[in-house]
Amino acid sequence: MEKIILDCDPGHDDAIAILLAAGNPNIDLLGITTVSGNHNVENTTRNALSVCTAYGIKVPVAKGSPVPIISDQVLAIEIHGDTGLDGPVLPPASFELDKRHGVDFIIDTVMAHEPKTVTLVPVGPYTNIALAARKEPRIVERVKKVVAMGGSYTRGNITPAAEYNIYGDPEAADVVFRAGWDVTMVGLDLTHQALATPELQDRVRAVGGPISQFILDIWKFIATTHGGLLQIEHPAVHDACCVAALIDPSVFTTEKADIRVETAGRWTKGMTVCNFEKMGGMRHFGGTASEQMSFRHSVAMQLDHAKFCDLIVDALERLTGRKG
Amino acid sequence: MEKIILDCDPGHDDAIAILLAAGNPNIDLLGITTVSGNHNVENTTRNALSVCTAYGIKVPVAKGSPVPIISDQVLAIEIHGDTGLDGPVLPPASFELDKRHGVDFIIDTVMAHEPKTVTLVPVGPYTNIALAARKEPRIVERVKKVVAMGGSYTRGNITPAAEYNIYGDPEAADVVFRAGWDVTMVGLDLTHQALATPELQDRVRAVGGPISQFILDIWKFIATTHGGLLQIEHPAVHDACCVAALIDPSVFTTEKADIRVETAGRWTKGMTVCNFEKMGGMRHFGGTASEQMSFRHSVAMQLDHAKFCDLIVDALERLTGRKG
Amino acid sequence: MEKIILDCDPGHDDAIAILLAAGNPNIDLLGITTVSGNHNVENTTRNALSVCTAYGIKVPVAKGSPVPIISDQVLAIEIHGDTGLDGPVLPPASFELDKRHGVDFIIDTVMAHEPKTVTLVPVGPYTNIALAARKEPRIVERVKKVVAMGGSYTRGNITPAAEYNIYGDPEAADVVFRAGWDVTMVGLDLTHQALATPELQDRVRAVGGPISQFILDIWKFIATTHGGLLQIEHPAVHDACCVAALIDPSVFTTEKADIRVETAGRWTKGMTVCNFEKMGGMRHFGGTASEQMSFRHSVAMQLDHAKFCDLIVDALERLTGRKG
Amino acid sequence: MEKIILDCDPGHDDAIAILLAAGNPNIDLLGITTVSGNHNVENTTRNALSVCTAYGIKVPVAKGSPVPIISDQVLAIEIHGDTGLDGPVLPPASFELDKRHGVDFIIDTVMAHEPKTVTLVPVGPYTNIALAARKEPRIVERVKKVVAMGGSYTRGNITPAAEYNIYGDPEAADVVFRAGWDVTMVGLDLTHQALATPELQDRVRAVGGPISQFILDIWKFIATTHGGLLQIEHPAVHDACCVAALIDPSVFTTEKADIRVETAGRWTKGMTVCNFEKMGGMRHFGGTASEQMSFRHSVAMQLDHAKFCDLIVDALERLTGRKG
Repeated sequence: MEKIILDCDPGHDDAIAILLAAGNPNIDLLGITTVSGNHNVENTTRNALSVCTAYGIKVPVAKGSPVPIISDQVLAIEIHGDTGLDGPVLPPASFELDKRHGVDFIIDTVMAHEPKTVTLVPVGPYTNIALAARKEPRIVERVKKVVAMGGSYTRGNITPAAEYNIYGDPEAADVVFRAGWDVTMVGLDLTHQALATPELQDRVRAVGGPISQFILDIWKFIATTHGGLLQIEHPAVHDACCVAALIDPSVFTTEKADIRVETAGRWTKGMTVCNFEKMGGMRHFGGTASEQMSFRHSVAMQLDHAKFCDLIVDALERLTGRKG
Repeated sequence: MEKIILDCDPGHDDAIAILLAAGNPNIDLLGITTVSGNHNVENTTRNALSVCTAYGIKVPVAKGSPVPIISDQVLAIEIHGDTGLDGPVLPPASFELDKRHGVDFIIDTVMAHEPKTVTLVPVGPYTNIALAARKEPRIVERVKKVVAMGGSYTRGNITPAAEYNIYGDPEAADVVFRAGWDVTMVGLDLTHQALATPELQDRVRAVGGPISQFILDIWKFIATTHGGLLQIEHPAVHDACCVAALIDPSVFTTEKADIRVETAGRWTKGMTVCNFEKMGGMRHFGGTASEQMSFRHSVAMQLDHAKFCDLIVDALERLTGRKG
Repeated sequence: MEKIILDCDPGHDDAIAILLAAGNPNIDLLGITTVSGNHNVENTTRNALSVCTAYGIKVPVAKGSPVPIISDQVLAIEIHGDTGLDGPVLPPASFELDKRHGVDFIIDTVMAHEPKTVTLVPVGPYTNIALAARKEPRIVERVKKVVAMGGSYTRGNITPAAEYNIYGDPEAADVVFRAGWDVTMVGLDLTHQALATPELQDRVRAVGGPISQFILDIWKFIATTHGGLLQIEHPAVHDACCVAALIDPSVFTTEKADIRVETAGRWTKGMTVCNFEKMGGMRHFGGTASEQMSFRHSVAMQLDHAKFCDLIVDALERLTGRKG
Repeated sequence: MEKIILDCDPGHDDAIAILLAAGNPNIDLLGITTVSGNHNVENTTRNALSVCTAYGIKVPVAKGSPVPIISDQVLAIEIHGDTGLDGPVLPPASFELDKRHGVDFIIDTVMAHEPKTVTLVPVGPYTNIALAARKEPRIVERVKKVVAMGGSYTRGNITPAAEYNIYGDPEAADVVFRAGWDVTMVGLDLTHQALATPELQDRVRAVGGPISQFILDIWKFIATTHGGLLQIEHPAVHDACCVAALIDPSVFTTEKADIRVETAGRWTKGMTVCNFEKMGGMRHFGGTASEQMSFRHSVAMQLDHAKFCDLIVDALERLTGRKG
């Protein structure tokens, strides 16, 4: 049973990550914190509440950071539409936000649980996670680990070099990767394997009911904005990959790496530069800088697509009452 | 018939590029200029002269730049050994260097030929090319094009982000890609397809004679240094790919791109950031900078390996007198 | 009557700033927040509490940020000694910290008062101020202004280009100067005029009593570390200059300027680059970047040293009961 | 007798530097090389030739670099007008340019003289000097020293941080200060003391004749463009300060310093960051970089204005035949 805080910016695939976390019995979803990214934090918070309302998910939701720590804000509105979750129709939220700021919710929750029991799962820009680590540095030792959607070890999606979650708050990502905890980077190289193929869509359709329809509507919308730009064939189910790996670590393979976030580059800002341990001979990493390399982080490499689809469908069946 | 100046730092695969250029009837090799890179310019120049001496190649050889324009020098000695061409045994040079500096040889040669008839083929760091363009800016308009080995649109080989030729003189590469001419970037994504497979090695062996042996010795040595580090299966024949494309452009496909060299990054110095025209929606390219994009450069994408091998073997047969 | 929050890292001259704020009837000191800088935040907080305890200053003290937002921590221990306030002997603190984090104290206090009535006075690294502005962006409009010790328009003190408070958290300073509020930058150019001359020291000595002795001990200690390094003749009373200007704006002249914090430079990180309105012809400011200039900030230029000394002595007389 | 090569971009004060070098018997002016800067190299070369023609100065003039090595060109046309030397009327050139490129003239001349006998005096952007050092690295050991106008240890003139000659080719300046030779940096802090006061102008007027008139016309023009922008009271005679110091080193005092050129900063590009040996305690110089400091360069500090004026007037009297 993995206790997690899902830090997100719903956002289409964020919503599926919420459903997977809520629908799987091995995940104890301690709360949801929101951040600006796919849209502003007002919208991403409303979307999180609406998804929870619509599908009976009863967890605290705390509104987090409205802006990146340092850099100017870049929202991903061209992908996610004017509401941040265009396409599906959702009810208004029927329950209250947690009173705390998302950053304080993260700190309080981590400090209230036993050491090494809570996993942070950021799937939007890492603003809240970085601010929590800076406001209360003791959480770095206390969390179990961080499993984060973001980055890439080859190419980006918002620039040739940078993936959106990192580019959206590069300094926050820099703080997160430099902190002492272990991060599993679930980047585009992995999530572009996590596609909603026609077969997966058929399986979701076969389950039936409003949640299935919601997921299908998400993919239908995303196909219109996401597919064209990124030269991938089917909608990518990015954020749910992090939750899937906490349910079943064999859903993807990983490689150990030293990961640095470029914050100074002219053309490469927000890039996650991954120096793999097995290629440790890249001795010029970092130019003339003398930093020691550390290969404590993990990079998601190869997805077991069938297993991933099974997890999605299983959660959906449980949420719709088809499975107990 | 393509008139070319081969600007190189032999270096193992550089030597094969020289042989391919000298051995193919469609290439008019106007001269060879040398540069520091795989080793210092004394050694790369001696190696160029020795290869020409050994195999009867009669073209001017001009010694070029001993150091990068701005950045500190990083030689690739761990790949190419103490002589810059360890492995094969070569005779001492029996003819004289051109009196001119390589940079002046390039300028004089381009200006002495008709406009748009000379192609520059840099396959080491681009120091000479950049200095020539800065010393005599009129060559930029006058050359036909630039076909350059270097860079990558995914990952590097000397750092996770940078390929060696670019990293070896990033500011020179920046000058070359910002100049007004058209550059075909033949990067690692392409050259890691140009492998000396056992089949190619068998074909070379079948030709027989000292040049074949020289090439086999090159691959034998490179397999000991190159193969392990870079996680590629067989020796890559990087530099010859540029010459091959000038003989037969169909040897690889290309995509139009805006290519920028990162010179400011902490972890990404020397990266070639490729914004492909077909993914032109990457509107955040360059962060908040307002530069216009230009997709005039080409990036080599997919190699026709069979055709490439045929060109290597064909040149070898001609040089050994098996073909006329 | 100026309502202020003093955000500080005592620190020797910080302590004098506290005394000046507490001792002058035109300053309503709403609270003190602490930050790491001259020493770690444990020590700077203890020092703030001890100063308040020793001299009967009854205001909330809230402990703030232990580390810079992004950059690695650089403490100024070589200037301020092992305790952060070496030299004087202080009693242990006899009252309790405010329960809130310094960042939350700032947000709560600004939001609880009428708009445009509270002035922020950061005299250490600007970490708390920046985090407050990021966590609750509405404070930017709501504060009256920011009067900040830090920076320089000529040379630095921790590097040739950077003053310590800015260098200690350059990204925080960048946030503070880019936010929409008006900042008065009280930098080294000003504070190196605010010297504890023998005449000032004599006047303080003449007041007598423990607070006078405390101040004299501060200057005695600082003369041993500060004077030598910085090539100034007498101890500088940096931080109190900000408070002095809020008591009597005529204590120094100002010039309007566009102020940018360098966060990307190799040798210039943490520099405050001041483009003065009266020299607005510096059209190349920012290189090729197209940002509009804004001259809304003010830079402290010329100190009225006599007036400054009068304010120090006046506060001291009031605190010691010599004046009512 | 100091053998010098004057590398310049006339330019108004450049012309006075030429006259001082030609008119003083202790200077052996081996040649003039030109560079783009105050205007394009066509104009600065024509102006150099015209000045030599007009006043009977018989030295080789070699045209140098048309563009900076890496950075985009920024000419100082707003200061020097459409011809690069607006104001005075000059005859057309009546003698021929040296056949060599300025870079090759520098290399040839330095290599043709005894080691440690030739001093380079760049008073425009350092493009030619850097290219010469890169094309023929042996000159670095062979020159006697470099006395260069440019930079500042406080504030700039084209940006708040950068002086024009450095900003005009920052990478060239970086090469020059990183090369092994000793550089005397004659920056704005010094040259803004070298003002053409009414007293100096009166003395020049008293000499009479066309050269005096030429110099007065220069100052008259510069007063209209230069004076306003830079908040200095009288025209600065920047470039001649370098020549003056070679005639009489006591014309200004110097301090030893480690000088680094900022090439990476967002707001500080082209700044000369001077870490003075006497302030060697600035241990954070260069941030976390581990480079060793070297204080081999010298920075001009305090001008003896009377001595400087005497040198100008003396050269003028010799050139006009009043003195022998």
